[in-house]
Amino acid sequence: MRVGELSRRTGVSVPTIKYYVREGLLPAGELSSPNQARYDESHVRRLRLVRALIDVGGLSVAAIRDVLEAVEDPDRSVHEVLGAAHDHIAPREGGPDDAARDTARRQARELIARRGWLVDDDNPAVRSLADALAAFGRLGHDRFAEVSLDVYAEAAERIAAVDVAYVAREVAREDVVESAVVGTVLGDAVLTSLRRLAQVDASARAYGTGEPPATA
Amino acid sequence: MRVGELSRRTGVSVPTIKYYVREGLLPAGELSSPNQARYDESHVRRLRLVRALIDVGGLSVAAIRDVLEAVEDPDRSVHEVLGAAHDHIAPREGGPDDAARDTARRQARELIARRGWLVDDDNPAVRSLADALAAFGRLGHDRFAEVSLDVYAEAAERIAAVDVAYVAREVAREDVVESAVVGTVLGDAVLTSLRRLAQVDASARAYGTGEPPATA
Repeated sequence: MRVGELSRRTGVSVPTIKYYVREGLLPAGELSSPNQARYDESHVRRLRLVRALIDVGGLSVAAIRDVLEAVEDPDRSVHEVLGAAHDHIAPREGGPDDAARDTARRQARELIARRGWLVDDDNPAVRSLADALAAFGRLGHDRFAEVSLDVYAEAAERIAAVDVAYVAREVAREDVVESAVVGTVLGDAVLTSLRRLAQVDASARAYGTGEPPATA
Repeated sequence: MRVGELSRRTGVSVPTIKYYVREGLLPAGELSSPNQARYDESHVRRLRLVRALIDVGGLSVAAIRDVLEAVEDPDRSVHEVLGAAHDHIAPREGGPDDAARDTARRQARELIARRGWLVDDDNPAVRSLADALAAFGRLGHDRFAEVSLDVYAEAAERIAAVDVAYVAREVAREDVVESAVVGTVLGDAVLTSLRRLAQVDASARAYGTGEPPATA
């Protein structure tokens, strides 16, 4: 198909398609004449993946290029590709190296031991978790790690079980990897939206009007 | 305290503190002489909140200004403030208005009806959810909504129950609202980190080496 049809099929404008080709997010079409390129279904699929990562995942063009390079490198395991994707979703900086950070690191390690999770201490998600717990601690919300963290962890386990079962249905490596990236990035968006909706529901049930509890 | 001590206590540099004051994220200190301002514990707390929203939540300065304005407006309900916070976390654009979007909107509405959630159709999280489901659909992953969505929703319900119980322990409106914003933004970061760790664990258990299933 020509670039015009590729644009129609995906809802991505022609200048944007050309920009993605220049930026290495989309392979160039096959030249059928000096100024006409032909695209196929693999381009449709790739463009939809790129748009999903941008629109729903909020990833930058540079981040997507990194993730796609990892997806296309047959020497990288699914874990490594997911690590690349996750590094770009999780914020990078995590606040000062203070007592709250030390406490949070310990809370994260203890949680992982308590749940019996098989994860390395240097997994970037351990750091992201500790960063978030440290931020709770600095704001005087140490209580969060005591009263809520295990409920979150148990919920995460149930979700991870369906995530892994979902990806396991794919047969080819490329499909496993793509499916895992899509599931990780879009799944986060689904989960945070659902959490918000469930909060609205729980709050409406607790307070009727959806107002906060009256001050004493 | 002087600005130097405020900087030491919070790990935020003096030029950055001054920038936040200019941008309206932090109230100016009380002038004790023409070129010296005094700060108190409320500034420490506010600075920590701003850093948590930037470092862990990934919010922009403009987004934080919006959220703080909502927090400080006594006429806004907790729901409205949380809506403001959530609008800034959730990506804004959601892909083309196509058949996948229509299907996703239906899936979102059906899910909400099935779970019996008390939420308005025009809640921004309904749109974010539909956007993410539409992106799954466009990538040929319609299956996600069938096999995984209710497990995600049930997990979200358990989390929302502890979230609402957590916030309900605060008494003053300002504390309820701040606690809800912190819990929403930082809780998302905790949850996505935990999901990633639980995925690593589930994958390691399923495949031993942490490698994808061998291709047939």
